[in-house]
Amino acid sequence: MESKLQELKARLMEVNDLNMAGALLSWDQTTYMPPGGAPARGRQLGTLAQIAHEKATDPSIGKLLDDLRPYEESLPYESDDASLIRVARRDYERLTKVPAAFMAQLQGHIATGYDVWTRARPANDFKMVRPALEKTLDLSRQLANYFPGYEHIADPLIDFADYGMKASSVRAIFSQLREKLVPNVRAITAQPPADDECLHQHFPEDKQLAFGLEVIKRFGYDFNRGRQDKTHHPFMTKFSLGDVRITTRVKENDLGEAIFSTMHESGHAMYEQGINMAYEGTPLANGASSGVHESQSRLWENVVGRSYGFWEYFYPRLQAVFPEQLKSVPLDTFYKAINKVQRSLIRTDADEVTYNLHPIIRFDLELQMLEGKLEVRNLPEVWRARYTSDVGITPPDDKDGVLQDVHWYGGVIGGAFQGYTLGNILGAQFYAAAMKAHPEVTGEIGRGEFGTLHRWLIENIYQHGAKFTAGELVQRVTGGPLSVEPYINYLKTKYGAIYSLA
Amino acid sequence: MESKLQELKARLMEVNDLNMAGALLSWDQTTYMPPGGAPARGRQLGTLAQIAHEKATDPSIGKLLDDLRPYEESLPYESDDASLIRVARRDYERLTKVPAAFMAQLQGHIATGYDVWTRARPANDFKMVRPALEKTLDLSRQLANYFPGYEHIADPLIDFADYGMKASSVRAIFSQLREKLVPNVRAITAQPPADDECLHQHFPEDKQLAFGLEVIKRFGYDFNRGRQDKTHHPFMTKFSLGDVRITTRVKENDLGEAIFSTMHESGHAMYEQGINMAYEGTPLANGASSGVHESQSRLWENVVGRSYGFWEYFYPRLQAVFPEQLKSVPLDTFYKAINKVQRSLIRTDADEVTYNLHPIIRFDLELQMLEGKLEVRNLPEVWRARYTSDVGITPPDDKDGVLQDVHWYGGVIGGAFQGYTLGNILGAQFYAAAMKAHPEVTGEIGRGEFGTLHRWLIENIYQHGAKFTAGELVQRVTGGPLSVEPYINYLKTKYGAIYSLA
Repeated sequence: MESKLQELKARLMEVNDLNMAGALLSWDQTTYMPPGGAPARGRQLGTLAQIAHEKATDPSIGKLLDDLRPYEESLPYESDDASLIRVARRDYERLTKVPAAFMAQLQGHIATGYDVWTRARPANDFKMVRPALEKTLDLSRQLANYFPGYEHIADPLIDFADYGMKASSVRAIFSQLREKLVPNVRAITAQPPADDECLHQHFPEDKQLAFGLEVIKRFGYDFNRGRQDKTHHPFMTKFSLGDVRITTRVKENDLGEAIFSTMHESGHAMYEQGINMAYEGTPLANGASSGVHESQSRLWENVVGRSYGFWEYFYPRLQAVFPEQLKSVPLDTFYKAINKVQRSLIRTDADEVTYNLHPIIRFDLELQMLEGKLEVRNLPEVWRARYTSDVGITPPDDKDGVLQDVHWYGGVIGGAFQGYTLGNILGAQFYAAAMKAHPEVTGEIGRGEFGTLHRWLIENIYQHGAKFTAGELVQRVTGGPLSVEPYINYLKTKYGAIYSLA
Repeated sequence: MESKLQELKARLMEVNDLNMAGALLSWDQTTYMPPGGAPARGRQLGTLAQIAHEKATDPSIGKLLDDLRPYEESLPYESDDASLIRVARRDYERLTKVPAAFMAQLQGHIATGYDVWTRARPANDFKMVRPALEKTLDLSRQLANYFPGYEHIADPLIDFADYGMKASSVRAIFSQLREKLVPNVRAITAQPPADDECLHQHFPEDKQLAFGLEVIKRFGYDFNRGRQDKTHHPFMTKFSLGDVRITTRVKENDLGEAIFSTMHESGHAMYEQGINMAYEGTPLANGASSGVHESQSRLWENVVGRSYGFWEYFYPRLQAVFPEQLKSVPLDTFYKAINKVQRSLIRTDADEVTYNLHPIIRFDLELQMLEGKLEVRNLPEVWRARYTSDVGITPPDDKDGVLQDVHWYGGVIGGAFQGYTLGNILGAQFYAAAMKAHPEVTGEIGRGEFGTLHRWLIENIYQHGAKFTAGELVQRVTGGPLSVEPYINYLKTKYGAIYSLA
């Protein structure tokens, strides 16, 4: 058994290495690659992905997984070996159920569709992408149908990102959340908007970057195993557990942009850096799910990074970095500015309170499309109607409406949006559990100390990597199932105070 | 035949893509990778190399090459298709003659030996690396013996880097060169040394970098298809014909370091950038040989970049960048400083006149080792003796003696050094041919214009990539075989003027 397990690990490591090489090629593509490198880079990424797919679906892996089943069953569920075999089997089954020819067709179509979208969005021309999007919907349904036995056709697609979740369970959670959120949004936006003028002065890039690095170093992001570069869209990527990088972008007329994106990506990165190093190169060296990953970026960006305590410590430092711009701006004004709530069109720019309305709308619409109840040609209209009813604002065009997010144009329809809102919910739930175990965390944050919180997260979440599903993790960490209550309480307490609500 | 050729190209492209991915991983390793990434990066490079080797030696490639032989023979030698098949066959035969298990053993040994050398050199401890070097010699001989039928045991190893050259032909050339060089070195070094104090002031890094970039942009290095980063050792690397990068290093107390390394690497890079774009991803998308590659780095660095005409144009610019440091230094003083000839210990720091003595010594010694006439344990002593007799200076230790170059410790013994001197010879020979065709080049260089020279090099050398061997290329370009005369004439004319020799 020992030699079969070694053989399995060696084969998975090979696949991992190919995927990590691909990740570096992608990172370079968005950071340092000269323009002339683009055509070959796309081809090289395709070659690596194809070889990785061939190796990951090699029948010998299936045979090893079968042979290892008795060994797996002889071990405790939580043991590293059993978990590795279990997660490897899940991956293998997912990959082998989809014919390679279909995957190639899908990827080819997505590449084309994405390319069209990059031109259609600035041109505000939904018609330009409609045929591609219709085909994407068709292919997304086909993809789901390779996993028969589902309750809802979106389930397999949701399962890819958030293993164990289903359309029905996500819907139930989202409807609870929406019910609470919509009145809150109404109550807050009925008040005069916060003044965030202080964030829109001129803030030189180098100083913004240095401040962001100082913050995440204090958080516990390990620069010995990471670095930050600039890209058009911020992201986290990893090439091994010893090399987990983040990127950011800076707007010199918007102080919030770089600082909060840096905190956000550092949350993703600290999760990966916190995974047990013994899992390096195995399928356990990943986050538990899209939602759990997002819970960590949101926890560090919002729950910590937009808290009053955090800025009690850091605001004097920020004022020292930008004395001209901020010396006459009181902490309270700054705090309200970075937590300004307003009805807005763009998901990625939305505040904490209104944010979830955006993914929930997308999630509902993609379910309707997959069900065949919403046709792609009616999507822009339905999008506008939902924004009007839920967010209370009507998109004046498709560019900042249905064309705003890359997900449907650079991927399949289904499974990509629920993770954002699940992340917000889970982030608050995990944070509440951390606070229960360590009430001193609040005081520490006010002193710019994050060690207790970071260690608790490593101990309870990060170290396990993909060993547990999101559901198992929530149960272990909080003693109960996923719940929207901590998140609603968090929002009510925080924004109740800012907006003096009842 | 068309479909077989397409199949061959597709298989070669796959190998190319894996190798290019490996090149990017290596580039990142020396530029931006955080220290924590090192262990996994080594493993990932190994994985990519192994998969590339498996795919490159797949018998189906041999079969395709056999099937394509009649097609190849029906085409003119110079046609792209015939050349691609010919060069692919050469590569395939080289790779398949060596058993994969032997290659793995060799690479494992080299990695270990290299690691020992990185500690042995600073410790000035040859004994520490001696056992590894003895094994390297043994393995180098074994490697050569996979290519039976050679005239000299070094021939297969020389052939890897400089296809078509042999120990006997290189020896003949080097002995001609040495005969002419040694008296020249004596005559020059009998005179008072040039004063290069002006280069050893404080020159801020950013200004040095900006000046170097300005120069190579004028040369014709295309930043749309390249970029420069900083590394400990400068190098050129490529990820496709659209992405050919260079690196440099800066010493703030040595103005020559960055400028000349930048020019040197830009020469390598312009060669690669000049290859016919239709060859992208094929074995033709490479330089013709190690010597021809080096001819281009040397041509741009030395023949152009250390010429009087070049600095007639650029020196006033350099003075404008560093007015305090250079305003009172006349052009003549600066010109003599950057062309200072002196007996020295370190190959990479040597001037144009003495430089070739260094590779020639190494070439002779590695031949003697491979022949079994020189034992590794006697190497330091023999090294010192040769430096004393040829260079006229005795290394005081092994650190700056036999341990100075990585080649024997990070590779095999044989084949790595002749390319440097062949490059100097070829560079002068090609330049003489360019001047014969375009005598106006001298005047253009004096006006900071390099277009005629660059276009001539693209037309006659660069565009062909690996289509022709070095020997064929010299014949085509100069109408005759490789010859040391142009190089000797170049040195005599240039240094005769500087040192007022008869």
